[in-house]
Amino acid sequence: MPIYTPPTRDMAFLLHDLMQVETSDIPGYDELDPAFTSAVLAEAGKLAAEVLQPLNAVGDREGCTLENGVVRTPAGFKDAFDQLREGGWTGLDCDPEFGGQGMPHLLGSATGEMFVAANMAFNMYQGLTHGAYSAIFAHGTEAQKAKWLPRLVTCEWTGTMNLTEPHSGTDLGLMRTKAEPQDDGSYKITGTKIFISAGDHDMADNIVHLVLAKIPGGPEGVKGISLFIVPKIMVDDDGKLGAANAVSVGALEHKMGIHGNATCVMNYDGATGYLLGEKHKGMRAMFTMMNEARLGVGVQGLGIAEVAYQNAVAYARERLQGRAVTGAENPDGPADPLIVHPDIRRSLMRQKSFVEGARALTFWAAQLIDRAQRMGDDDAEGMVSLLIPVIKGVQTDRGFDVTVEAQQVFGGHGYIEDNGMSQFARDARIAMIYEGANGIQALDLVGRKLAQDGGKHVMAFFDMVKDFIKDNEGNEDLKAGFLEPLKSASKDLQAAAMYFMQSAAKRPNDALAGAYDFMHLFGHVAIGLMWARMARAAMDKLAAGPDDAAFYETKIATGRYYMAREIPATAMLRARIESGADPVMALDAAAF
Amino acid sequence: MPIYTPPTRDMAFLLHDLMQVETSDIPGYDELDPAFTSAVLAEAGKLAAEVLQPLNAVGDREGCTLENGVVRTPAGFKDAFDQLREGGWTGLDCDPEFGGQGMPHLLGSATGEMFVAANMAFNMYQGLTHGAYSAIFAHGTEAQKAKWLPRLVTCEWTGTMNLTEPHSGTDLGLMRTKAEPQDDGSYKITGTKIFISAGDHDMADNIVHLVLAKIPGGPEGVKGISLFIVPKIMVDDDGKLGAANAVSVGALEHKMGIHGNATCVMNYDGATGYLLGEKHKGMRAMFTMMNEARLGVGVQGLGIAEVAYQNAVAYARERLQGRAVTGAENPDGPADPLIVHPDIRRSLMRQKSFVEGARALTFWAAQLIDRAQRMGDDDAEGMVSLLIPVIKGVQTDRGFDVTVEAQQVFGGHGYIEDNGMSQFARDARIAMIYEGANGIQALDLVGRKLAQDGGKHVMAFFDMVKDFIKDNEGNEDLKAGFLEPLKSASKDLQAAAMYFMQSAAKRPNDALAGAYDFMHLFGHVAIGLMWARMARAAMDKLAAGPDDAAFYETKIATGRYYMAREIPATAMLRARIESGADPVMALDAAAF
Repeated sequence: MPIYTPPTRDMAFLLHDLMQVETSDIPGYDELDPAFTSAVLAEAGKLAAEVLQPLNAVGDREGCTLENGVVRTPAGFKDAFDQLREGGWTGLDCDPEFGGQGMPHLLGSATGEMFVAANMAFNMYQGLTHGAYSAIFAHGTEAQKAKWLPRLVTCEWTGTMNLTEPHSGTDLGLMRTKAEPQDDGSYKITGTKIFISAGDHDMADNIVHLVLAKIPGGPEGVKGISLFIVPKIMVDDDGKLGAANAVSVGALEHKMGIHGNATCVMNYDGATGYLLGEKHKGMRAMFTMMNEARLGVGVQGLGIAEVAYQNAVAYARERLQGRAVTGAENPDGPADPLIVHPDIRRSLMRQKSFVEGARALTFWAAQLIDRAQRMGDDDAEGMVSLLIPVIKGVQTDRGFDVTVEAQQVFGGHGYIEDNGMSQFARDARIAMIYEGANGIQALDLVGRKLAQDGGKHVMAFFDMVKDFIKDNEGNEDLKAGFLEPLKSASKDLQAAAMYFMQSAAKRPNDALAGAYDFMHLFGHVAIGLMWARMARAAMDKLAAGPDDAAFYETKIATGRYYMAREIPATAMLRARIESGADPVMALDAAAF
Repeated sequence: MPIYTPPTRDMAFLLHDLMQVETSDIPGYDELDPAFTSAVLAEAGKLAAEVLQPLNAVGDREGCTLENGVVRTPAGFKDAFDQLREGGWTGLDCDPEFGGQGMPHLLGSATGEMFVAANMAFNMYQGLTHGAYSAIFAHGTEAQKAKWLPRLVTCEWTGTMNLTEPHSGTDLGLMRTKAEPQDDGSYKITGTKIFISAGDHDMADNIVHLVLAKIPGGPEGVKGISLFIVPKIMVDDDGKLGAANAVSVGALEHKMGIHGNATCVMNYDGATGYLLGEKHKGMRAMFTMMNEARLGVGVQGLGIAEVAYQNAVAYARERLQGRAVTGAENPDGPADPLIVHPDIRRSLMRQKSFVEGARALTFWAAQLIDRAQRMGDDDAEGMVSLLIPVIKGVQTDRGFDVTVEAQQVFGGHGYIEDNGMSQFARDARIAMIYEGANGIQALDLVGRKLAQDGGKHVMAFFDMVKDFIKDNEGNEDLKAGFLEPLKSASKDLQAAAMYFMQSAAKRPNDALAGAYDFMHLFGHVAIGLMWARMARAAMDKLAAGPDDAAFYETKIATGRYYMAREIPATAMLRARIESGADPVMALDAAAF
């Protein structure tokens, strides 16, 4: 069975050595002293490693079943969900007014990473619920909030998001689901939604579906979409459960991975729904939750990469095969462990440097969300909006790559299902697709976020890189290994952005054809900045002569690897982008 | 159900426009005129598309079963195997003395690509048999050849390769399977082998296992390994089947993909085996088949990428989603097809340019094998030995990537199993692992092949690139788009090779830490050379005013894409390599 050790030491480094959260001016952060965060992270880690992780393979093997309209989750899921609930984890960063614990989103992201790493399919049940909570919290009336939120916070009821229809995925304007107004102010919802994660199951008393639909007579396309609350079971004004609503599960999808999550075809046959937010403003309501939701998927890329990496390391230490070229390192054994081999090291360093860099980037984004939500800081909101498509796209692309590389360390033993490495790759694959496929993230970045507020946020990002380099230019330890590669990478990013700006009016396809590479280029600079900051923080700690010097030395060496071997990709990505759209668009559609 | 159109037009271009095989001096190539090759390829394509491909999803879904020691293949496999046999495909490039058709290996690779693309798991049954044929053909006594080959050629009997043991994969020296000499000259084989593809099944009368084992008292490690023929059912001197041998299937493996192939744990309990080749020279015997076997796996990477790409194109043409930024291209429909979007084009061009480049490289390698085998040409043997690890490593890595990219074009519809895109990715994944994991290919390239025969072959490769550039430097159409990027990429490759040479003695880890990137760097230059040659051939054809000018224009445009957007990776790979082993080896094993 795969192992999982919660990366709480690394999280503590980020929170306290790098970000020094307890001294932040964000309301609530003053409570985040090391003793408190370590207690929370340790508890979450324990639940993840001891309860959720052992169920991961079970979920994959058994999957969910649909019989007579009833969906059942794999053995053990219900008990584990009860433990998650009882520990208060489902409402960790929810509003205390509705029963939440009011913790920062930052802490929710940290615990979320561990839950995902331990059991991604399982954690989606609470993840979707959190999304529904956020939507109702942001757009519900006081009565709606009072009615629905408390039991979403506790996960007594879980939530779903219903966007996709068979012919309508990325292009939601094509949606056909109808919402017909009723005399009592409610709506009758009719239509079919597909790919509905956690669409039905046996772990909660009710399911609160958030459904996008069109009110007849409204505007065409995405401007005519409204958002509705559609419960599985009707709830009266006292909160008591009543009759079943006209909602049913048409089928369970058979998927490449996340078998433990019930991905449903949902049929709404005149089901009763309640408008959430304004009429025809459903897309806007979805967008306000998007940063959180997409960060959550970026966390999936990170979390599953972490657990895959941990298992690759364990296998590389234990599997004896071949001898180090520089002389036997296990002379008394029949062979040396895999980890002596430079090509295995290459793979492990690639994995490790991604995971730790992505975690730093995730924590930064979560902190920006807290700053935006708790302080109404528009600059933080703008910066995180810029970073989110990068985090979602890059962390899920590279997160999947890491699972594949970790699987490769196992050789043939990674291809058979017994060791769990295949499941990591199969599960990780979905994160590149849902919550906006990564191509859409790239378009969001280049088509929307770059120019947002007059390009203010991307300029602020560039300034941040420039300032860091300037502030540290006297630091000889950082200079060659960190500052110079970062500077060069940032120059590539700026040049690419400039290229897009110059061709935007005349040749819009240039930016669209280069968007995907730009997203990854941005990711390298963002993760590179994280590594430079982490190296600086580690050097500062080392100067103080800490007990665990090895931890900080490892941190710096891992960063050096990233700067030497990963960040040089920026020049290639820039070259691709600057080749323009012509090589990409040259063929007639018929010529493929 | 996925589609598959045999790429016979592209194959004809390679065979006749690019390679002009019918005028080659290789014995047997004079028969390969366009009418003949097109007839063969069309027939193979028909079998692939009409018989094998419809069984691909069946094989994935049903898998193989083991009951009371009997392995059953999925429904329809046996009939299809009969058709493969009856068409004479299994012996296409086998020696006529033993019932083969005596065709060049080149033609076997071309038909093999189609069989793989249509049904990789199915085609492995004949692929392994071909490997066993080659081993016995190369190392058997006349009596052994007469006894075993004719029925391997027809696939009345199939073959297997038994190398791996639970604790012994890449490091075969750790092997424990024993071969004890008997008075009659045979051996008793005892041990357990794992991951044995096509290890047992119900489609042939007998199975001829080739088993590596140690004769007690022989040299330690790989120098004490011998190769044995171990039939499932004993065969008397007249070729009649007798009693069962002491061989049994311990279990079937549950794998990420290739479910239609029976991957077995094989138990040998004092089974009767016959020495093949010399005592203790089993590894050498395996090595002589390695080029062919590894090329075959490279063909798997290519074939499955081709079929995944074809399905991505079909979906991109048909799925309506969003509008082209430059104006609606399907104004009467509800939306434009995906293929109008530059980011989808980027993905499709990436796929297409890989597949066609890899096919050219594969055909070149197959031709070199023919030249080596049919003419005893040592230079051809040396060149193909150099190319093989590149082909195996790069084509399976990138082939897998292509399946993932093709799957991504489908969005959520690619993640559910119904559309077959998940299967392509899951099946393609194994090719990166077996027949020497790709890290081993990289080590073979850098540690063995580069310096082989005093570096003669790599120098010949560099000369080939240089000569092509020189011979075409007056060609303005080729210059900026092809020759300059090729020159720059080749310079990166030479610099990296030089870097390894200079550090080899003092710092062997530099080469080992850079080997993987070097393999991919080499792949880019080799595929780049193929694209430059193909562009030149297409330009020559266009000058003659052909009927299908669009085909040749597409070829050139696809090549331009590769040179503009893919080959710039060489600078990054060189930078990584030249950063040396330090960033990779800096950590203690305990620090991961």
